[in-house]
Amino acid sequence: MDLRDYIRDIPDFPKPGIIFKDITPLLGDAAAMKHCITQIEQLVAGKKIDKIAGIEARGFIIAVPLAIQMGVGFIPIRKAGKLPAATVKMEYALEYGKAQIEIHEDACQPGENVLIADDLLATGGTMAAAARLVEQIGGKVAGCAFLIELAFLGGRNMLPDRDLHSLIVVD
Amino acid sequence: MDLRDYIRDIPDFPKPGIIFKDITPLLGDAAAMKHCITQIEQLVAGKKIDKIAGIEARGFIIAVPLAIQMGVGFIPIRKAGKLPAATVKMEYALEYGKAQIEIHEDACQPGENVLIADDLLATGGTMAAAARLVEQIGGKVAGCAFLIELAFLGGRNMLPDRDLHSLIVVD
Repeated sequence: MDLRDYIRDIPDFPKPGIIFKDITPLLGDAAAMKHCITQIEQLVAGKKIDKIAGIEARGFIIAVPLAIQMGVGFIPIRKAGKLPAATVKMEYALEYGKAQIEIHEDACQPGENVLIADDLLATGGTMAAAARLVEQIGGKVAGCAFLIELAFLGGRNMLPDRDLHSLIVVD
Repeated sequence: MDLRDYIRDIPDFPKPGIIFKDITPLLGDAAAMKHCITQIEQLVAGKKIDKIAGIEARGFIIAVPLAIQMGVGFIPIRKAGKLPAATVKMEYALEYGKAQIEIHEDACQPGENVLIADDLLATGGTMAAAARLVEQIGGKVAGCAFLIELAFLGGRNMLPDRDLHSLIVVD
């Protein structure tokens, strides 16, 4: 099974000139989705992982089933104002303006190994902020796993000290 | 295992006087999360279900692993402007103001039976809009499944013609 067959290009989204990689055909196919999660699990096989964090909202789609399949807990990283208990916040730059994400202070135990999973590595800013959040609450970043990496955007440059794993690389 | 042990009350969130049911302890415990998904699967056992839809963002946390466990495809219902292909939109009232959610026009085949899963049944407005969206693209609403129902908010009144299943009911 080639998962690329389940990812479609949507031109000019979210704005003219951008070709968006739409994973909804993959999500809509049970066998493809199961295969996807199993393949990401194999990418990180052998690593010590105590928890898996996912970034709202599409990151949840990858991180939650991966956590269940690997038998570890899931940590939500959310946009500002969504998590109800005490949080640590991180602001990061977008192409235009800024965004802020949060994690619960008690989302992991000190020293726990946290894999962060997301659907897409684009410019890397969101993942860089997420990794620092995990460290701020005392976790160790075991690695960062992506369903798709848009290599031409150079997101790896934003994550020089991280252990990165991408299932599908788009050059 | 009593899943209520993994749900904590956060007072005064998102505003004074509200007691928020925080499921992050449940998400953080692999066994509890697995149990939760299995229990929801049992709630809807015997129904014909071709796809499972989930509502951004917390609904994804329930709907995606449920779809994988049941071996059916997942359909994301998202806030306005997030889905890249052609969509159908639905506006609905919030306590203050309005919100809009969308579904891809091609997210299901005509006549497919779609279960909609969400973490929380509160006032029911979001689920009512989601169910109409599924019907607008030609799907049949097989039912609506919730991890938690806040019965005192009367959300069932907004969904009189729907087959509702709640794992945990808070009176």
